[in-house]
Amino acid sequence: MIDVARDSLFGLDNLPYGVFSTPGAAPRVGVRVGDSVLDLARVLDDEVFAQPSLNPFMARGHRRWSEVRERVTELAGADVPADAVHPVDEVHMHLPIEVADYVDFYASEHHASNIGRLFRPDSEPLMPNWKHLPVGYHGRAGTVVVSGTDIVRPRGQYATPDGPEFGPCRRLDIEAELGFVVGAGSPLGTPVSCDDFAEHVFGAVLVNDWSARDIQAWEYVPLGPFLGKSFATSISPWVVPMAALDAARVPLPRQDPEPLPYLRGREPWGLDIDLTIDWNGQAISHPPYRTMYWSPAQMLAHLTVNGASARTGDLFASGTISGPEMNQRGALIELTWGGAEPIDLDGEPRTFLRDDDTITISATAPSSSGGRLGFGEVHGRIQAS
Amino acid sequence: MIDVARDSLFGLDNLPYGVFSTPGAAPRVGVRVGDSVLDLARVLDDEVFAQPSLNPFMARGHRRWSEVRERVTELAGADVPADAVHPVDEVHMHLPIEVADYVDFYASEHHASNIGRLFRPDSEPLMPNWKHLPVGYHGRAGTVVVSGTDIVRPRGQYATPDGPEFGPCRRLDIEAELGFVVGAGSPLGTPVSCDDFAEHVFGAVLVNDWSARDIQAWEYVPLGPFLGKSFATSISPWVVPMAALDAARVPLPRQDPEPLPYLRGREPWGLDIDLTIDWNGQAISHPPYRTMYWSPAQMLAHLTVNGASARTGDLFASGTISGPEMNQRGALIELTWGGAEPIDLDGEPRTFLRDDDTITISATAPSSSGGRLGFGEVHGRIQAS
Repeated sequence: MIDVARDSLFGLDNLPYGVFSTPGAAPRVGVRVGDSVLDLARVLDDEVFAQPSLNPFMARGHRRWSEVRERVTELAGADVPADAVHPVDEVHMHLPIEVADYVDFYASEHHASNIGRLFRPDSEPLMPNWKHLPVGYHGRAGTVVVSGTDIVRPRGQYATPDGPEFGPCRRLDIEAELGFVVGAGSPLGTPVSCDDFAEHVFGAVLVNDWSARDIQAWEYVPLGPFLGKSFATSISPWVVPMAALDAARVPLPRQDPEPLPYLRGREPWGLDIDLTIDWNGQAISHPPYRTMYWSPAQMLAHLTVNGASARTGDLFASGTISGPEMNQRGALIELTWGGAEPIDLDGEPRTFLRDDDTITISATAPSSSGGRLGFGEVHGRIQAS
Repeated sequence: MIDVARDSLFGLDNLPYGVFSTPGAAPRVGVRVGDSVLDLARVLDDEVFAQPSLNPFMARGHRRWSEVRERVTELAGADVPADAVHPVDEVHMHLPIEVADYVDFYASEHHASNIGRLFRPDSEPLMPNWKHLPVGYHGRAGTVVVSGTDIVRPRGQYATPDGPEFGPCRRLDIEAELGFVVGAGSPLGTPVSCDDFAEHVFGAVLVNDWSARDIQAWEYVPLGPFLGKSFATSISPWVVPMAALDAARVPLPRQDPEPLPYLRGREPWGLDIDLTIDWNGQAISHPPYRTMYWSPAQMLAHLTVNGASARTGDLFASGTISGPEMNQRGALIELTWGGAEPIDLDGEPRTFLRDDDTITISATAPSSSGGRLGFGEVHGRIQAS
């Protein structure tokens, strides 16, 4: 029986999956139980768990996910071989999924409104399409990295009064987001309805969508963000199964106007998840996921409604999570109002990220036992370029 | 010795790679020689050629590409086992690469200016950034399909005077482009200079970036095209090695202002490639690649200058190729000026694509023997949805 503290955020109602390695052994699939990692390649007779990503397991589909979750619950409470359990502090965590396509949405009304006010002060903050569809775009799958990877300050072009210049980014920012991992894909030409969400989506991770605001502002018209985002996107190493988030499901905030039929579902897919952003160890914000306008089920329905296929390993993220309050905003550009209102960080006024700064995003949610479960964290340190 | 007609577009100075299968046998790598396909899995003792994509071979790097090209040249002129050579009409062609990330640029000044005039008639046609950097964005890698795949008309939201409606796309368009395939990747944090282009890029394909203009127009602010493009992108089955395009290299049109240093290279990477677009068998346009403003070497340098890695299988496309003349435009929206000036198609005035329409894009370029080489073609038929 694996020891789990009563108030652990990784109790038997969580059981997130990740890819870990121990000295001298290859990366393989494990489940976090309390402060331990259970080696699934060792205890379950299925070669998918000996792989260096969750993709082969995820591709087996929803029914197999349920079977394995049930079996892991039994194992965690039973006698398992000592060499199948590792203290979480003694393993190395890897990128848990092989990312197929990466899409980033823009699903927080507060975030989209804040950004609209900052970038286009003389217009309506929300674009006319915003309340009719979950706006999103494709990002770079090849630069999704696991928590702990240093983030090299990107170089690029930014506008100056004398024309564009090239150099290290001067407005390096974060975006606190939730990411959803497609486990079972869908064929070309077959949209996924809102109600089929749970059949396709395996679990959720924390995302920090690092953003170079000066590069982004110069490049993004008319085809959207590109190099301002593509240098790195960090995700947490533990994928929390959607099944573990049942107790966190809540209705969405009211959607007005009512979305088109393909964006309606029978079941609510709002999620009551509380995030915290730490900057050099100081908590600077507490974004509440339950305030998001569009649900992840609506995001996947929209993503596929034109017939686009989804694949095992697709990652789609919510976009910055910002609540209505000042201290609930998920990006520095909002927290400092474009750099005009610095944050007091340990006595020093600060706006964007400096070299050696660290950002850690963590999150918890209600769990089925009446307690809370955790997502772990996604963190990164800025390296000079 | 493989029979090659004197004026073949697939002579020994071309030798493009593809993935083919014959009845009862698995997809594997072949080279096109004249009207035949040489089965590399059969004649070369290297397991990379027995794979269903070019990626394992491409990952071996530039030196190996040269060795194999030399060896194939010898083999094509020598006696090879009869069962290693198949008539091209009797094989089935597959998607030649496993697409890692897909990026689409916007590198034709004539195209960007035309689109600017159509979408923003009261402003300068080019955005202020356009002549300073090759504008681009990420597309959906998972919906890149091989030539011959039917294109199901996408459904989606479009604007009407009474608000958005949902239905089959009513302005379905094409974009004739050239695509470049990364063979040897680059690590995170290490930009690829313009002069290192040939070390990384394996070859080129024809691309039809199908576009739903009504969906795109409604969705694309502020984060760029998404569902208006993501339903399908077709590529030609034969990847023409960059080495075969030496005789097609020409200087770029003059770049003014001079680009920033990271976008300058010692060698010219303009390409003198002539495309033809056929609509239901009628040639409607002849886009000239040599008129493109930004070179593929500049595209790759820009793509990686922020530290983003490149991977084997990355595909980046040029964006629509449009020359200065009416009959050189690469998209129907330009050829029909937003639908206002129909094309005469076999006596009928036409604007956007109807169900059962077919589009075929082909291309040729000067070859090192003084003749011409071909890209084959990328074609697709529109299916009702």
